[in-house]
Amino acid sequence: MAVARVADGLRSLRYRPDTHCVVIIDQTRLPGELHWVELRELEDFCHAIEHMQVRGAPLIGITAAFALAFALCQNPGEASCQRSLERLLATRPTAVNLGWALDRVAAVARAALDAGTGECGARVLLEAQRMADEDVAVCRSIGAHGLKILESLYDTVKQGEALQVLTHCNAGWLAALEWGTALAPVYAAAEIGLPVHVWVSETRPRNQGANLTTWELRQAGIPHTLIADNAAGYLLAQNRVDCVLVGSDRTVANGDVCNKIGTYLKALAARESGVPFYVALPVSTIDWTCATGGDIPIEERSAQEVLALHGRDATGRSTTISLAPPGTAACNPAFDVTPGDLVSSLITEYGIFGANPEGLSRLSSAMGIPAES
Amino acid sequence: MAVARVADGLRSLRYRPDTHCVVIIDQTRLPGELHWVELRELEDFCHAIEHMQVRGAPLIGITAAFALAFALCQNPGEASCQRSLERLLATRPTAVNLGWALDRVAAVARAALDAGTGECGARVLLEAQRMADEDVAVCRSIGAHGLKILESLYDTVKQGEALQVLTHCNAGWLAALEWGTALAPVYAAAEIGLPVHVWVSETRPRNQGANLTTWELRQAGIPHTLIADNAAGYLLAQNRVDCVLVGSDRTVANGDVCNKIGTYLKALAARESGVPFYVALPVSTIDWTCATGGDIPIEERSAQEVLALHGRDATGRSTTISLAPPGTAACNPAFDVTPGDLVSSLITEYGIFGANPEGLSRLSSAMGIPAES
Repeated sequence: MAVARVADGLRSLRYRPDTHCVVIIDQTRLPGELHWVELRELEDFCHAIEHMQVRGAPLIGITAAFALAFALCQNPGEASCQRSLERLLATRPTAVNLGWALDRVAAVARAALDAGTGECGARVLLEAQRMADEDVAVCRSIGAHGLKILESLYDTVKQGEALQVLTHCNAGWLAALEWGTALAPVYAAAEIGLPVHVWVSETRPRNQGANLTTWELRQAGIPHTLIADNAAGYLLAQNRVDCVLVGSDRTVANGDVCNKIGTYLKALAARESGVPFYVALPVSTIDWTCATGGDIPIEERSAQEVLALHGRDATGRSTTISLAPPGTAACNPAFDVTPGDLVSSLITEYGIFGANPEGLSRLSSAMGIPAES
Repeated sequence: MAVARVADGLRSLRYRPDTHCVVIIDQTRLPGELHWVELRELEDFCHAIEHMQVRGAPLIGITAAFALAFALCQNPGEASCQRSLERLLATRPTAVNLGWALDRVAAVARAALDAGTGECGARVLLEAQRMADEDVAVCRSIGAHGLKILESLYDTVKQGEALQVLTHCNAGWLAALEWGTALAPVYAAAEIGLPVHVWVSETRPRNQGANLTTWELRQAGIPHTLIADNAAGYLLAQNRVDCVLVGSDRTVANGDVCNKIGTYLKALAARESGVPFYVALPVSTIDWTCATGGDIPIEERSAQEVLALHGRDATGRSTTISLAPPGTAACNPAFDVTPGDLVSSLITEYGIFGANPEGLSRLSSAMGIPAES
């Protein structure tokens, strides 16, 4: 059960004061192996982010915050701080709360450096721990707000059968600290016994749906079925989906949503079939300075991610295979942009808002941000 | 070059009179291995169709025609004919020209049986060979008509750069006898030196794009880039595609098109970006008796096709891997329906027609079918 998962206190990342390290799950080894990795050096953290041992907008941000803390514990000072920030910012270009998290810890670092008390690393570490705890609370709140939507859909469209939720990629607790974003309402539904079945799209090319979301849902005992990404349109057209629920790597001021490649196709198909399409996100993933989705830099990752597939062979051994003929060229954009008008609502820790300039403006008011900030 | 390919006379299926067998490429072994398989018994043919050693609407039809011929050469008579037809029809439910091809050879068989001349098998064999030759001519004609569209697009949108064509699955010569359907215009363009670059979507779950289309285009020397199916919407939204060109397994009377799962998502994205979406098909794939796409039976194939991926490991050895945790459920619809209003035109051997009742009616007139047939 989801409850058990959360009650276990199993987090995708935790700080160990006794050995002064950050422990993460190497998500590239899931679902075959639950392998924990200890991060200590700045480059350990950068490697973990770049190679997607940690991924998901919230988790990337928290990891980066701890990275700066560790760098400053080792090498205090303005130059080290600046160098570390630049290195960390370059790890992944699209997820905006990498920048959000670094801005936050950088401010703490600079205040400590200015104060000259010599506790810079310790203060940033404390801030990173605070951010981790806040992330858990934020995701829990997203779950509570999203649950209201699921309950309402269940009351409207279902006669005792399970609510059919389609998700893409992994926006569960592996993508955050606990609970997750898109899966938080699903876990919240499971907690109160609302029957939910999740269609999991495998999410080529890195297969986060097949590798991670199935693993998460299996552990939580939530019924789910894996599909090829291609099958989403068919299921929607066949009325076999009641709502689509995804996360976001960056949402911008006009309500456009950047998320894992393939999200946009599902949004188009949901609109065509009159199925609501929800995006669950912490406000830290909002880029208030970006006017439209067209302004978001889209990360193009290595062709090898398309050409080589990692899985387990019949003996359970980790194996890499290729499908296409050797030498085939591949193009690998990691994200796409879903225009706000395809999004039914944004589910945030502050409640539910329209994916349009008015909705974002209401959200910023709810957050207490002055209108012209 | 495409020309060389066609001039070689390499066909995806051929009849060998000397050893009385049909030789096919086992397409499940491509691109790793070009392995030819000899078919002699009815069950050899059925196995080849069911296990997709041969696939693609035109090739399935021709294979089934030869299958009936071989069954009747071995066991002549009405009972054998009926039993074989039923067995063959059950192999794949969606591709309509399986039925079309079987109707055609069944008529020849019955005429021969009625005549009582004892040449039933030989006559059906001759008909199957005729159908194979006709298929080549039909695909060549589709290529010629489609080329006009590509030339026009090239003149309109391009300034000397390659025309960007996006295709899905494999509708090349491996799916037919020679030339193919969706790739026929591309081969025709290459023949006259019109620069074309093809975006190949990998086509999960069976990866016909990654396995077969890349292999075909590589052999023909046509520039191409593999993408995850998820990336199609992004490329279309970025104006990096000039047209989408796909095949069809069954097109129905109102212009709805059934094709490989994922086609519908690409059609939605093409419309959204104002990019023309063409379907290339021989008229044998049209189901005139089917009113709308909603009436087409959609084949659901084994969950294993989603769960297990076949490829080659680093040593080139054929290997199967799984991604999801053991025991994960999967759903695997093999086709989806693209409503005719998302289709810019149907490219047939009779020319170019609208994907709507009027277009189909014009097409039936061009074919010389009486209006109320």
